[in-house]
Amino acid sequence: MTKLIENAAGRMVPAEINGAEAIPYKGVGKHRPTGRKACPPIRSCNDFPLDGNKLTESLIQALRNAGLRDGMTISTHHHLRNGDYVANAVFAAAAELGVKDLRWFPSASFPVHEPMIQHMENGVIHHIEGSMNGPLGDYCSKGKMRGMAVLRSHGGRYQAVQDGEVHIDIAVIAAPTADEFGNATGDRGPTACGLLGFALADSEYADHVIVVTDNLVPFPCVPWQIQGNNVDQVVVMDSIGDASKIVSGTTRITKSPDRLLIAELTARFCDEAGIITDGFSFQAGAGGTSLAFAIYLRDIMRERKIKARFVRGGSNKYLVDMLEEGLTDYILDGQTFDLDGVRSMRENPGHVNTSPFTSYNWHGKGNFAGMLDVVVLGATEVDVDFNANVVTHSDGRLLHGIGGWQNCLFSKCTILPIPSFRDRIPVLVDRVTTLCGPGELIDVIVTERGIAINPMRRDLLEQLEGSSLPIRPLAEIKAEVEEIVGGKPQPPEFGEKVVAAIKWVDGTVIDCVHQTGG
Amino acid sequence: MTKLIENAAGRMVPAEINGAEAIPYKGVGKHRPTGRKACPPIRSCNDFPLDGNKLTESLIQALRNAGLRDGMTISTHHHLRNGDYVANAVFAAAAELGVKDLRWFPSASFPVHEPMIQHMENGVIHHIEGSMNGPLGDYCSKGKMRGMAVLRSHGGRYQAVQDGEVHIDIAVIAAPTADEFGNATGDRGPTACGLLGFALADSEYADHVIVVTDNLVPFPCVPWQIQGNNVDQVVVMDSIGDASKIVSGTTRITKSPDRLLIAELTARFCDEAGIITDGFSFQAGAGGTSLAFAIYLRDIMRERKIKARFVRGGSNKYLVDMLEEGLTDYILDGQTFDLDGVRSMRENPGHVNTSPFTSYNWHGKGNFAGMLDVVVLGATEVDVDFNANVVTHSDGRLLHGIGGWQNCLFSKCTILPIPSFRDRIPVLVDRVTTLCGPGELIDVIVTERGIAINPMRRDLLEQLEGSSLPIRPLAEIKAEVEEIVGGKPQPPEFGEKVVAAIKWVDGTVIDCVHQTGG
Repeated sequence: MTKLIENAAGRMVPAEINGAEAIPYKGVGKHRPTGRKACPPIRSCNDFPLDGNKLTESLIQALRNAGLRDGMTISTHHHLRNGDYVANAVFAAAAELGVKDLRWFPSASFPVHEPMIQHMENGVIHHIEGSMNGPLGDYCSKGKMRGMAVLRSHGGRYQAVQDGEVHIDIAVIAAPTADEFGNATGDRGPTACGLLGFALADSEYADHVIVVTDNLVPFPCVPWQIQGNNVDQVVVMDSIGDASKIVSGTTRITKSPDRLLIAELTARFCDEAGIITDGFSFQAGAGGTSLAFAIYLRDIMRERKIKARFVRGGSNKYLVDMLEEGLTDYILDGQTFDLDGVRSMRENPGHVNTSPFTSYNWHGKGNFAGMLDVVVLGATEVDVDFNANVVTHSDGRLLHGIGGWQNCLFSKCTILPIPSFRDRIPVLVDRVTTLCGPGELIDVIVTERGIAINPMRRDLLEQLEGSSLPIRPLAEIKAEVEEIVGGKPQPPEFGEKVVAAIKWVDGTVIDCVHQTGG
Repeated sequence: MTKLIENAAGRMVPAEINGAEAIPYKGVGKHRPTGRKACPPIRSCNDFPLDGNKLTESLIQALRNAGLRDGMTISTHHHLRNGDYVANAVFAAAAELGVKDLRWFPSASFPVHEPMIQHMENGVIHHIEGSMNGPLGDYCSKGKMRGMAVLRSHGGRYQAVQDGEVHIDIAVIAAPTADEFGNATGDRGPTACGLLGFALADSEYADHVIVVTDNLVPFPCVPWQIQGNNVDQVVVMDSIGDASKIVSGTTRITKSPDRLLIAELTARFCDEAGIITDGFSFQAGAGGTSLAFAIYLRDIMRERKIKARFVRGGSNKYLVDMLEEGLTDYILDGQTFDLDGVRSMRENPGHVNTSPFTSYNWHGKGNFAGMLDVVVLGATEVDVDFNANVVTHSDGRLLHGIGGWQNCLFSKCTILPIPSFRDRIPVLVDRVTTLCGPGELIDVIVTERGIAINPMRRDLLEQLEGSSLPIRPLAEIKAEVEEIVGGKPQPPEFGEKVVAAIKWVDGTVIDCVHQTGG
């Protein structure tokens, strides 16, 4: 049985994760890291071809050359999202080599990675550490994975690698375009996905780095989002992914009248709070409501002739339109969500490629997240103290990753526009099933029944005093919802087994997820 | 007295450098590094302002905040060349703070840095580790510096920092444009110098990083050649340099008929050796002869409609013209030598910013240098075994740095176009005063009296058999020169004191320079 200890948020969290000691969450800004960054072995050009040609004939041979053996950690990135062929090919090759007990360390996994369940059943993969969207999350939730999952934010994943908390033996980097030396870019080629920032830490800190591409170009591959100087081998595959599935499914604007209302209220709130001024900045996550918010915001900006200094993406055609229309100087982009984003990144110097290091890493000398004037994010649950959940559903199943969500909470104003209930289950709860974001960092909740401002944000409460917006206490909105749906939601039934640890941005454990269903 | 030991090149080199053990040169590709890269302390956003504002009111206050104290190592870069104001300002501030025995670790120093002599006399600076052009080299040669100078190639400097051989306490990075977060670029602003690649290692590995700019822009400063996530403080100065002196003095095409002949022979040699073909690559150093070579090469390319895949710079208007004319796909640039280079790097996506890490670091997973089809470099002396000197004059004085010279020797064909004598002193000698490059890496010597091919390059000798070019044994050219000038040159008179160690690209000591004059 996993030993649990109480952390500063009052959550019982595992004292150990997969055999290594874990640090319980201490509160926002309370954990002070010590020690030094991970230091990869010193390499020498003696061991690499002078002419720069690092081609290996196949992925399986590359894994052999890399010395793949039982118990190693293999990482992949998720910029190809549900169109990725590479991660499955890696573990198919590992299975063929008869290797067991691997740790898969993806930046995120998708339904396309369902074959990994077979590898877990067969013992090839011991466990997954990384966001699990869909079937893998479900498998994990049911307690079927041998090891404990560890969910980290994008910034937290960089932090964990940088700090040596996760040592990657072999990183396999799917590259839409690359040269023989290993320089690689995501912004062009038949399987273009925009950028490769989620693989940056892997390329810098893994012992062995394999670039896999379906579009080999003569040196130099420019831009080199991944630097060949960090790469050991290059493998050419017929196709690294299904380009049609790279586009994120969450990039359609909502048509729901409730959600459109929420988006509009959010935009009006930003306006009345004085956020929409020349030179401001914003980030809106993926998802229909966020997109609708961006459209309302754009209309206000057009009308008032206001120009943003930068917007953060996940980019999509709406942000690209804003850049091209001159409504912002820059898009600082962490992942492109559609092909307009890819094109813009390739062609427009104002559309800038960022990484979890620049944007989100808490263990750096600052990061970009705190500079945002406003971010708009989703949540599966919010409680009366403004604490929020983003990984589990109301039935307790772990079905989502954290993404950049935790990192973004450090913006100057964090707004969660959410419906007050889904499928007749209230989203506003007494206590979130899984704590992902501490309430003190969440400033505003916008629902179709009103806007709740965090009482800690007296400045916002004052600024909005006398507003025509429906500003109400969160508890009041919650009570109203319970009235409508006929009471509080049933808390999910959990088993004893801890199936996943939820890390905070500083590497401490903020909560965990227990087995559910079966 | 410094204890000397013989290295694999038969040179007597110091066993210790400034108190640390030194590894004697073992031969090309013979030293195998062990251990791990330097690992900087883990930082936390807890200690940096969330809004990204890292401005400090003055350089002296920034040095105080950085904890400057006796014996520390302070680094600077040399992209502002002889127009740099920042390094002098740093040590003036250090002197004002009463600090002593500092090690100055510039990527190179110039005549503008002559005030450092006063700081050495007063004890503020203990010694300089880095290329010394002009008065500082002369001061060092005379044995006046307390510590031993260490000269490294651009790649060797990156290697030394990466490997932890040189620990930088405080890096001060002059930035032509920067934002409050510390993102910085060299390609724009009143003191634009193109790029900041020589400061990359410093930004990554120094304990404390201070960016100094005279052109502060709102976040984000794009491109961020230096990443603010590595920066501790930002200081604004009225001016970081004299823009008129940033341009390299070595960018005028020679008018000497002998040197024009040498340049032409070099281009013809490349042609007959079959190097000038579609998709080829070349690098020509700074200096009048190299520039003239590039012009001849360009004419051949135009005539035959040949396009290079890439050319390496030091960029200048001639290379920029070639890029704009479509004679090359890319300029891969390590430093811009004139304002056309700066403009092109800012505006042309084909003009790519490189660093000593990508281009030259021997302790990486390969680098760019070996991929070059041909490089054309200078030398102060060459001996009968094709060994070459690039740091000392025939009088033994240390007046030049190594630059990227050693790193470039790994190209597929390394050519040294040099006059056979200078001021009636032969350049071809029995034994070079200071060994900087082993003869086995130097393929061709082109003089106004003929072209000598290294006997190790049988392929080239065969390829050029029957050529109308004046191909002759090196010894024969040397004998002819001695005949003309009336004998061999007088070897310089040296004292016992070792004033400088010359590092090879792998961190071993290939030679040293003794005191001369007084």
